[in-house]
Amino acid sequence: MRVEPRLSRGLRDLLPEQMLARQRMVDTIRGVYEIYGFSPLETPAVEYLDVLSGSAGEEAQQSIFRVTNPEEEALGLRFDLTVPLSRVVSQYQQELVLPFRRYQVSSVWRADKPEAGRFREFMQFDLDSVGAPSEVADTEIMAAMCDTLEALQVGPYRVRFSSRKILNLLLKHAAIPEGQGADVFRVLDKLDKIGFPKVRLELTSGYTDESGDRIRGVGLTSQQVDKIEHFLAIQGDRDEVLARLMELFAAVEGAAGDLEVIRRISSHLNALGYLSDRIALDLSIARGLAYYTGPIFEANLLDAPEFGSVFGGGRYDDLVRRFTGQSIPATGASVGVDRLLAALLKLNRITVRKTATQVLVTAMDADLMGEYLKITYELRRAGICTEIHVGQPKRLGKQLQRADRLEIPYVVIMGSDEAARSVVTVKEMGEGREKTAGVTAHEQWKAARFGQQEVARSELVATLKGLLASHKQE
Amino acid sequence: MRVEPRLSRGLRDLLPEQMLARQRMVDTIRGVYEIYGFSPLETPAVEYLDVLSGSAGEEAQQSIFRVTNPEEEALGLRFDLTVPLSRVVSQYQQELVLPFRRYQVSSVWRADKPEAGRFREFMQFDLDSVGAPSEVADTEIMAAMCDTLEALQVGPYRVRFSSRKILNLLLKHAAIPEGQGADVFRVLDKLDKIGFPKVRLELTSGYTDESGDRIRGVGLTSQQVDKIEHFLAIQGDRDEVLARLMELFAAVEGAAGDLEVIRRISSHLNALGYLSDRIALDLSIARGLAYYTGPIFEANLLDAPEFGSVFGGGRYDDLVRRFTGQSIPATGASVGVDRLLAALLKLNRITVRKTATQVLVTAMDADLMGEYLKITYELRRAGICTEIHVGQPKRLGKQLQRADRLEIPYVVIMGSDEAARSVVTVKEMGEGREKTAGVTAHEQWKAARFGQQEVARSELVATLKGLLASHKQE
Repeated sequence: MRVEPRLSRGLRDLLPEQMLARQRMVDTIRGVYEIYGFSPLETPAVEYLDVLSGSAGEEAQQSIFRVTNPEEEALGLRFDLTVPLSRVVSQYQQELVLPFRRYQVSSVWRADKPEAGRFREFMQFDLDSVGAPSEVADTEIMAAMCDTLEALQVGPYRVRFSSRKILNLLLKHAAIPEGQGADVFRVLDKLDKIGFPKVRLELTSGYTDESGDRIRGVGLTSQQVDKIEHFLAIQGDRDEVLARLMELFAAVEGAAGDLEVIRRISSHLNALGYLSDRIALDLSIARGLAYYTGPIFEANLLDAPEFGSVFGGGRYDDLVRRFTGQSIPATGASVGVDRLLAALLKLNRITVRKTATQVLVTAMDADLMGEYLKITYELRRAGICTEIHVGQPKRLGKQLQRADRLEIPYVVIMGSDEAARSVVTVKEMGEGREKTAGVTAHEQWKAARFGQQEVARSELVATLKGLLASHKQE
Repeated sequence: MRVEPRLSRGLRDLLPEQMLARQRMVDTIRGVYEIYGFSPLETPAVEYLDVLSGSAGEEAQQSIFRVTNPEEEALGLRFDLTVPLSRVVSQYQQELVLPFRRYQVSSVWRADKPEAGRFREFMQFDLDSVGAPSEVADTEIMAAMCDTLEALQVGPYRVRFSSRKILNLLLKHAAIPEGQGADVFRVLDKLDKIGFPKVRLELTSGYTDESGDRIRGVGLTSQQVDKIEHFLAIQGDRDEVLARLMELFAAVEGAAGDLEVIRRISSHLNALGYLSDRIALDLSIARGLAYYTGPIFEANLLDAPEFGSVFGGGRYDDLVRRFTGQSIPATGASVGVDRLLAALLKLNRITVRKTATQVLVTAMDADLMGEYLKITYELRRAGICTEIHVGQPKRLGKQLQRADRLEIPYVVIMGSDEAARSVVTVKEMGEGREKTAGVTAHEQWKAARFGQQEVARSELVATLKGLLASHKQE
């Protein structure tokens, strides 16, 4: 009985073309994080359901993939990397040295309603300092966000930050009870997506959306929302925004201390060269999750606003309390690797390769197979990514077609005649062939004309090294 | 209500110490595979249960972790990377260019009875050529196994190979019906573990083991097992073993052709320098899985035989048939990353680091925080993995304790007095401090005496670069 090869909804394969790009991204991010002195952690995909539950709101709960083991325990696949981190910090309290500076790059699973470009299994890359009360920890997380995006060459971007402490001052200023805070922040988080008029409706009496669904209102008064609107209108560089906030909250208890922390972060960022063009103090961000307690951050690609925040996080000082009853100050950020990859692919800001292979050694003559293998290993041992024909015995045309379809830049060809003369033919594939370098004028002419050249067998490695070096520079 | 931070049985966390080691292993293996022209593939952890079922025997079936999505489909976590590869090859037949040369490094899940050192979630690193009928494909898989183990500096190892074709000749030679082949191979696969006397019992009438369990016999006659024993006694270098096999199977139909393939593989390996000391033709290996159809390979660490095969695989020409009805020739091997890591840790053949951090910048004076950050970023921008104190404000002793516990080699200290004189103190932690290099004799004396030196603020980056370079060489 045949089985249909297929995947369940919202799941997908990453073929080599996408994986090569994603892997390069992951390596780059890892490089930045290690320079910052963060070390890797890995946790199992499968966690107890009660460990996963409780910290991330109802929506996340409902989207957990349930798992059963032979012991029929209640398990689930992790939906983020922050909950496992909190569990690890609680579980290994004796072993771990705080601050625990860790990164983790792993898949997470959320059984959301599948949409275009949204998947149920996707990769997150998290960076966190746990046991880090100092605002220096928040500062370096934002700096790391900039350094990461620059290392990835994403083009123009902006890190935006604010603080739950500032938003709490706003609540006091607008006389909104603290208990309504989470609801207010959840609605404010949609500002970019739905715009202020709808935010106003949702903060007051609610409304009915295009699809006829009733969006429940938070129940604020129009005067309260006016104060929020006034607050959101504060814009400018970090110093300006801070000055306006000090004015606005002059009468609010605790404002001076809370704003002083923000001022220190901004001053540290200035000293390190991260100015307002890269890291803006932006009062319009709120972050949806309930657990943030201090600075919050997110990053957007200016050329791809439709992808929303590709990198976000904040300070969360109470997340381990569920496990230990104590509060441990922590701050961090998470890259949505797959979302960022999709954005970079759309913007053509990431090189796409179909294979890691640089050279294909063709096999034309079964008697020469030993020689083809020797050539292959000379190239491999010289650090050139090389494959040898291992498919059906077939004519050269078919083998070249492979190089063409996979965009393998160079092909090595040797028939019995060439073997007898101790030469091989190097063929440059694709558009690159007009640009062969490092050979004589006559050879260049030949290369331009035919896209191939004959080289002495003993010169093959050196020739290909030269060609690949110039190929890379283009 | 507090939740106990814990993991379900057979699951574990990899703290930074283990992850740093595993990651270095994975990077090394990936480097070798890309040199061989293999490209990465990623598939979801969650697959349809009917996709997972059927190809890997009953034992694997029972060990599948069941998964449920909101649509209540029958899903499971993959238990290997070969089944997902077969699905991918079948599902994207139009898109993929055969031979499909891919590697995949991913977790797999098997809900086996947990034993010491065996986990229910573990990492595999697979390498396969699909659509590769040539024995050159098998040859390079074995060569890649050697290159990988050497790149990992595992110490003495041996790749052992044989072929299901040779074992099938043995069946004919011993007049064992083909239908009993799978059972015979399954028992032979235990040879290393249980020894020949028990293999003989299990191949004939069965026996009762130490724990009182009845081991069912395969039902061969004593004469048939004599022939198997005679076959297993053939040892020597590859040429000798081949010569003895040609003799033994002289009367067996098809032997000449089957052995010629093995001879060609051996001859290719000779030409590339992989002699019998590294890749032995070893008739005692059988591989347990039913799906192999040609050459089979495994690798053992000679200094850690108790870990068994750390790398294994073979040719399987029929695995996609379940999906497509056609047979596609394929060959490959899989590294048990976690098992190999455990072996290397036990053999002390892998460097263990507790953190990626090379330098800790301490914070003694809140007023100098901006300066500490500047130092930190100078070091980071010079490519030195640096962290800055972000924990509770505390005395220097506590901060040095962190460096000590995490084995961070260097600590930078600057108080207000040093800041005024534009100098900083570099302290070398741990045993390394007796070996400071690249400084004057007087400074060396000081370093040996106190494990620390004062350097001009402007010289800090250069000094630490020098120290780290000599630190690495030790």
